[in-house]
Amino acid sequence: MYTDRPQYYDSASRLTVVAHFCGVVSIVLLLVWLLHYREGIDYYSGDAFRVFNVHPFLMVFGFIFFSGEAMMAYKTIFATRDVQKFMHMLLHLIAFALGVVGICAVFKYHNMQQVEDMNSLHSWIGIGTISLFGCQWLFGFFTYMIRGASTSTKKRIMPWHITGGRVVLFMAVCSALTGLMQKATFLKLEHEREARFLNFTAVFILLFGVFVDLSVSLAHYV
Amino acid sequence: MYTDRPQYYDSASRLTVVAHFCGVVSIVLLLVWLLHYREGIDYYSGDAFRVFNVHPFLMVFGFIFFSGEAMMAYKTIFATRDVQKFMHMLLHLIAFALGVVGICAVFKYHNMQQVEDMNSLHSWIGIGTISLFGCQWLFGFFTYMIRGASTSTKKRIMPWHITGGRVVLFMAVCSALTGLMQKATFLKLEHEREARFLNFTAVFILLFGVFVDLSVSLAHYV
Repeated sequence: MYTDRPQYYDSASRLTVVAHFCGVVSIVLLLVWLLHYREGIDYYSGDAFRVFNVHPFLMVFGFIFFSGEAMMAYKTIFATRDVQKFMHMLLHLIAFALGVVGICAVFKYHNMQQVEDMNSLHSWIGIGTISLFGCQWLFGFFTYMIRGASTSTKKRIMPWHITGGRVVLFMAVCSALTGLMQKATFLKLEHEREARFLNFTAVFILLFGVFVDLSVSLAHYV
Repeated sequence: MYTDRPQYYDSASRLTVVAHFCGVVSIVLLLVWLLHYREGIDYYSGDAFRVFNVHPFLMVFGFIFFSGEAMMAYKTIFATRDVQKFMHMLLHLIAFALGVVGICAVFKYHNMQQVEDMNSLHSWIGIGTISLFGCQWLFGFFTYMIRGASTSTKKRIMPWHITGGRVVLFMAVCSALTGLMQKATFLKLEHEREARFLNFTAVFILLFGVFVDLSVSLAHYV
């Protein structure tokens, strides 16, 4: 399918290296932030803030990082096309499952603190993102995995599948950045070292999204 | 160039209608927010908040909306390719100029309020975005407008130009959303009508970015 323009495919594969780097850096920074600057991570803690911290961790490490890995699976996993496809589906499923647990954590926190749910812009974008993600996964599963559609239909729908997937990742990154922005403003971190630390974490999450996007786009380019 | 797959080109053109709708709605909502709920818009006012409000207005109406229009110019302007190309360049230049004035407004506000600049995540992403936007514009201008590069080079670089442009729009939307999130958290709007109004404004800005992205991506798809 892409043999006539291998140069973009190669560029795209090299971009996955940068994407991995940014992804790993963002997770390390996030963990340092949650474990050193904040209260730690524990879903079953009596301390509401430790429960809350499960949310950013699972949304970035679980939802965004696994989604990105799933999107890059065709370039990073050295195996047959069928294995790549299965891993693409499986990594997305893991991302979705971890994302749902991450959302449960923040609802549990709201319950413990007696705060209303779904008020902020962050929560609106976030719930919209994971809902679209679920639809995209189901649509992809029934069209491409269980051989429900004809080859020509699969091929015709592919650009929508890829572009739709990219858009959902874009929305997921927007959710993460609005969430970190909300937390930083709420904590009034403006002039502290923690604020700059959090900014760098967010910038690496953004760069992860950007490089996954570049890598996926260029690999399929006209 | 795309005559073999006109169906995506048509879909992409229809998507521009949705993009325009979301763009116009977001500007109307933003104006209502700034003029009704907030203090109004005036760069030369003695009221620091009226000066500040120039910033969200120019970044959304000026920077994001004009960028999006520029990106869709090849589908929305019924003229020769050369005219479309010139408008693509010009609309981007207007977006950049209005964006710079918008950024000046917030620096002026900081000065009036004696607040430090460039502390927040929003400011980091924003300044990164407009810098990359400037580079992308210069790169595009010297490669495509003044006929500096050979036809084969122009063609080879095009996917990077398009994908890079999409990524900069993605970053601009992230900047807008983190900015609105910061303002909403700062004003402690969580349980008020204004909070929901602001959320809807931000959601339409996000949808504008999403539909411009979809329309640009699908039009050039393999």
